[in-house]
Amino acid sequence: MTASPTYGELTDKGASTNIAWHEASVGRDDRSQQRGHRSAILWFTGLSGSGKSTLANAVNAALFERGLATYVLDGDNIRHGLCKDLGFSDADREENIRRIGEVAKLFLDAGVIVLTAFVSPFRADRDKARDLVEDGDFLEVFCAADLEVCESRDPKGLYAKARAGQIKEFTGISSPYEAPETPELKIDTGKQDLAYSVELVIKALQERGVIPAA
Amino acid sequence: MTASPTYGELTDKGASTNIAWHEASVGRDDRSQQRGHRSAILWFTGLSGSGKSTLANAVNAALFERGLATYVLDGDNIRHGLCKDLGFSDADREENIRRIGEVAKLFLDAGVIVLTAFVSPFRADRDKARDLVEDGDFLEVFCAADLEVCESRDPKGLYAKARAGQIKEFTGISSPYEAPETPELKIDTGKQDLAYSVELVIKALQERGVIPAA
Repeated sequence: MTASPTYGELTDKGASTNIAWHEASVGRDDRSQQRGHRSAILWFTGLSGSGKSTLANAVNAALFERGLATYVLDGDNIRHGLCKDLGFSDADREENIRRIGEVAKLFLDAGVIVLTAFVSPFRADRDKARDLVEDGDFLEVFCAADLEVCESRDPKGLYAKARAGQIKEFTGISSPYEAPETPELKIDTGKQDLAYSVELVIKALQERGVIPAA
Repeated sequence: MTASPTYGELTDKGASTNIAWHEASVGRDDRSQQRGHRSAILWFTGLSGSGKSTLANAVNAALFERGLATYVLDGDNIRHGLCKDLGFSDADREENIRRIGEVAKLFLDAGVIVLTAFVSPFRADRDKARDLVEDGDFLEVFCAADLEVCESRDPKGLYAKARAGQIKEFTGISSPYEAPETPELKIDTGKQDLAYSVELVIKALQERGVIPAA
């Protein structure tokens, strides 16, 4: 081992080997360059049953097939882990979305296209997540299926429970859903078929230069 | 658009196109296979000034140079973001480490080799992070520089403040550091030079089959 820097020398920028180590922090741009695509946050929002998670996972799979770095954050991997200490009070819902926004920002920094799939009913909470990152890094994808469609699907039986009063403050029934006013993408996931919806998202990423054209 | 699945059909596993979409969730193994390396959590622990962050960033850079997917979680990107609501009480320190463990698990699932660089002084907290994942996915790297060395470096002036009583419960001075009993790797970051320490970590990853041999 010769001429290797030791811990005590790391602030000495005069020695080239030290610079190499001292400046060792790998940035988002380095990752983009190596992987051939930028990172972004795709924030899917919509009623329960609107198909957020289905669409996010399908987009994720399509991006993965192109060899891109992607990841989905949804109830499955967040609610029983990072946010398992949180309930469904207003304060806890806000904190839940706050943490998801912060984790999404970490993935963004890590060079990963991260897709979040949560109802995230409140505009202010979504806007806080958006404000954590630079313009262009946050794409809001509004899954705009009608309530009737979502309720008729009711894959988890939640609407039935909400109607029966067994779930309090259920979005769309007893708690408001504040639709995005200017989302980057609005997809009627009640009517559009899935493959076409995936194409719309992919196209939006290409148009913004996040991923290369096919 | 023909024969494309629609949202309402996604539970019908009888139709092959539906299966394709329904099973669209990309798993950790898929990512490993595509990227040519497994993921892992490298959990650096040690006193303030022991060189955890320096070593983690240097390892990160070395792995990045090999084209691998990596990311560092440290005070810079966690304390002002995900954990900005937490202070330094016992409960808050525990919650801080809990969240870091959960986020590390997400990166693991995303196929990323994630390096965490926090003092994480309590054995029970580190073991909880370890227990979140499978055996072999968690490598504890004990940065075992002597207190004297760390205090003489004191890059942030924290030891001086702790000695002056301006910081309460400072690890190593007024709060205990519980050294790992059986870490996967113990490096005397007070004596070993940095390049050699990096090599030790890389070798440990190779021996465990996380990354390919050079």
